[in-house]
Amino acid sequence: MKLVASESLSRLAALHCSACGTEYSAFDLQRVSACCNVPLVADYDLHEPLSRAVIDQADTSMWRYGALLPLLHEENKVTLGEGLTPLLRLPRLAARYDLANLLLKDEGQNPTGSFKARGLSMAVSKAKELGIEGCIIPTAGNAGVALAAYCARGGLKAVVVMPRHTPAAFKEECYWYGAEVELVDGLISDCGARVRQRNANGALLDISTLKEPYRLEGKKTMGYEIAEQLGWTLPDVLLYPAGGGTGLIGIWKAFQEMKQLGWLAPEVKLPRMVAVQAENCCPLLETYEGRQSNCHAYQGRATLANGLAVPHPLGEAMMLRVLHESNGTVVSVSEEGMLAGMRDLGQHEGLFVAPEGGAVWTAARQLLATGEIQPHENILLLNTGNGQKYMDNVAGRARG
Amino acid sequence: MKLVASESLSRLAALHCSACGTEYSAFDLQRVSACCNVPLVADYDLHEPLSRAVIDQADTSMWRYGALLPLLHEENKVTLGEGLTPLLRLPRLAARYDLANLLLKDEGQNPTGSFKARGLSMAVSKAKELGIEGCIIPTAGNAGVALAAYCARGGLKAVVVMPRHTPAAFKEECYWYGAEVELVDGLISDCGARVRQRNANGALLDISTLKEPYRLEGKKTMGYEIAEQLGWTLPDVLLYPAGGGTGLIGIWKAFQEMKQLGWLAPEVKLPRMVAVQAENCCPLLETYEGRQSNCHAYQGRATLANGLAVPHPLGEAMMLRVLHESNGTVVSVSEEGMLAGMRDLGQHEGLFVAPEGGAVWTAARQLLATGEIQPHENILLLNTGNGQKYMDNVAGRARG
Repeated sequence: MKLVASESLSRLAALHCSACGTEYSAFDLQRVSACCNVPLVADYDLHEPLSRAVIDQADTSMWRYGALLPLLHEENKVTLGEGLTPLLRLPRLAARYDLANLLLKDEGQNPTGSFKARGLSMAVSKAKELGIEGCIIPTAGNAGVALAAYCARGGLKAVVVMPRHTPAAFKEECYWYGAEVELVDGLISDCGARVRQRNANGALLDISTLKEPYRLEGKKTMGYEIAEQLGWTLPDVLLYPAGGGTGLIGIWKAFQEMKQLGWLAPEVKLPRMVAVQAENCCPLLETYEGRQSNCHAYQGRATLANGLAVPHPLGEAMMLRVLHESNGTVVSVSEEGMLAGMRDLGQHEGLFVAPEGGAVWTAARQLLATGEIQPHENILLLNTGNGQKYMDNVAGRARG
Repeated sequence: MKLVASESLSRLAALHCSACGTEYSAFDLQRVSACCNVPLVADYDLHEPLSRAVIDQADTSMWRYGALLPLLHEENKVTLGEGLTPLLRLPRLAARYDLANLLLKDEGQNPTGSFKARGLSMAVSKAKELGIEGCIIPTAGNAGVALAAYCARGGLKAVVVMPRHTPAAFKEECYWYGAEVELVDGLISDCGARVRQRNANGALLDISTLKEPYRLEGKKTMGYEIAEQLGWTLPDVLLYPAGGGTGLIGIWKAFQEMKQLGWLAPEVKLPRMVAVQAENCCPLLETYEGRQSNCHAYQGRATLANGLAVPHPLGEAMMLRVLHESNGTVVSVSEEGMLAGMRDLGQHEGLFVAPEGGAVWTAARQLLATGEIQPHENILLLNTGNGQKYMDNVAGRARG
């Protein structure tokens, strides 16, 4: 199905290969780049002036930034009200650890309880716009739940392939959305292999992280929101739990776009981006520190933060670029460190976060201890999901 | 601690007894009315003009209606970003059942996963403003979780008393917030008795439904949001799962206030309010239909919708008044009906709702079958929570 952008608010212009820059049409169905077999990235026409007044203030979802999103026609929008999640100050935790300004963006308040809602709302909307009737996804948990929900909402078939060891709550929620669930022994990379085998005929759209260009566009809205919620300023350092890495890459893309648009003043410095991984599965850390040339042969293990159990992220090169461009870093957190972070956020700030969120706070403490973050800096933690679906694995651990 | 409203945006003026109208100070700590021993209700000075421009559009939480809320000083606000939840159209379900306009307000996207966040954010903020150091609550589940979260956020001690049979997820989440949890054999009424016994010395503030006047003020924000989100119109009929009933009473109070303020045009008709109960515990239905003079001796049983297992609601008279004033009704739903409603919302609209939310959709279908709701009417379903914390009890039931 060929699309035209006429009469659309969207400034979508083209796609380009993230490795060599070759241009692709944004108005046909695309997956990865044919040239380099790497992720495609969406470009917008940002040359004509576009003021911040284009933000639809009456829309209290991520779709308020519609001009900078790839959906062409409103009737294809598949939404459950995702995005515009709270950006909370954490004064009690800040006082406890003698920090000047500690913030947390709580993605656990999204539909389906995680940040995955953004990417899947966008990807399923675009799939619908492109005439797709069914989607398939390998997942560590949250993305599968979100795919199932948005496919149900849009009337598309959903097939979710997840590790057998995923907490039951993730599987069960998929059933309530009427999705087909297949369980695989192994990690998300093994699920990915199963998806390729099962969908060899291409009957379903493969919505794997970065294998289609639009989940990234949904995720980038976190970056727009952070800037808008901080009055068009940015924190000094932003800590993000990076498994597949779409959020990290997407937020950085949003910052670049806002600079180009003039929405961020020239004097606004972009934050140092910190990728937080699990000690049990930290391929990015290993590559970043030079112990391997890339993640292709990395051996990961399961972790409480199942969203971080991604041994071979397709977006590794893109993540490394963000870390270098932003003068950021990678840090890994132990299983006990994640729980300790969850306890701190729960007991002192009333937030029951996913282990990924716990990891991010503990990572901040680790970097404060080494001096890589200073107590006077503005520190933003990104919590990607709420703790509920992880309950099977964390029950009984609240008291340390 | 005595408070003054000077320099505050809030128009809070006084409290009155919901039975006889006797006035009480809104600037001292109050519980129920000393005259009649019934709930106190907050009044605002609505005589001076107050335009809709007073709504803080930059605030994407329920606190955008600050002038009509009882908090006097910003620094006492205990917030996790509650409110301004999505009001979703349900086109696929509407088409399936041949309905003109079906809407759902999804309270499951609140912090702690339910509508209870609104009332507890407000009550804990006011407790903090009044110098209270600790709170106690009898709960069917969600309110206890919310109390625990907001007390942690505000630095107050929390004691949560809940039925032993409550799904484990509710108890466990309270532990993560550092709350003390006491389990009681029986329903919420038995927990209420235990709270009175345990807190006989009044050391903690009893935050039981309608035993302090401010949870109601938090809940009423649902009414303000519905009107604002519908462009200052209202649906024809609004279905609400009524256990303690604070939401039903609060939404109706908001509608009255908006009429008085002129925020709703004279030609805007208020909706018929439908209270939805569980067949296993439907005291309001029994009283409404004249099979008992009131709920005091009602015998209720446990239900999947634990929020509806409230055999002796303190606000019964206030709920009945809403039903009569709005020309509404009460309807009860079976356990299987709740599950069927959950399946419909999950499979056709991508919403994994609490059994209370499933009950509301099934109740709408029951009233459509009897002709008490017409297919051409604008129907609004209120889903009070997401399904996650109920997983223990509904696992394996997704397929019917």
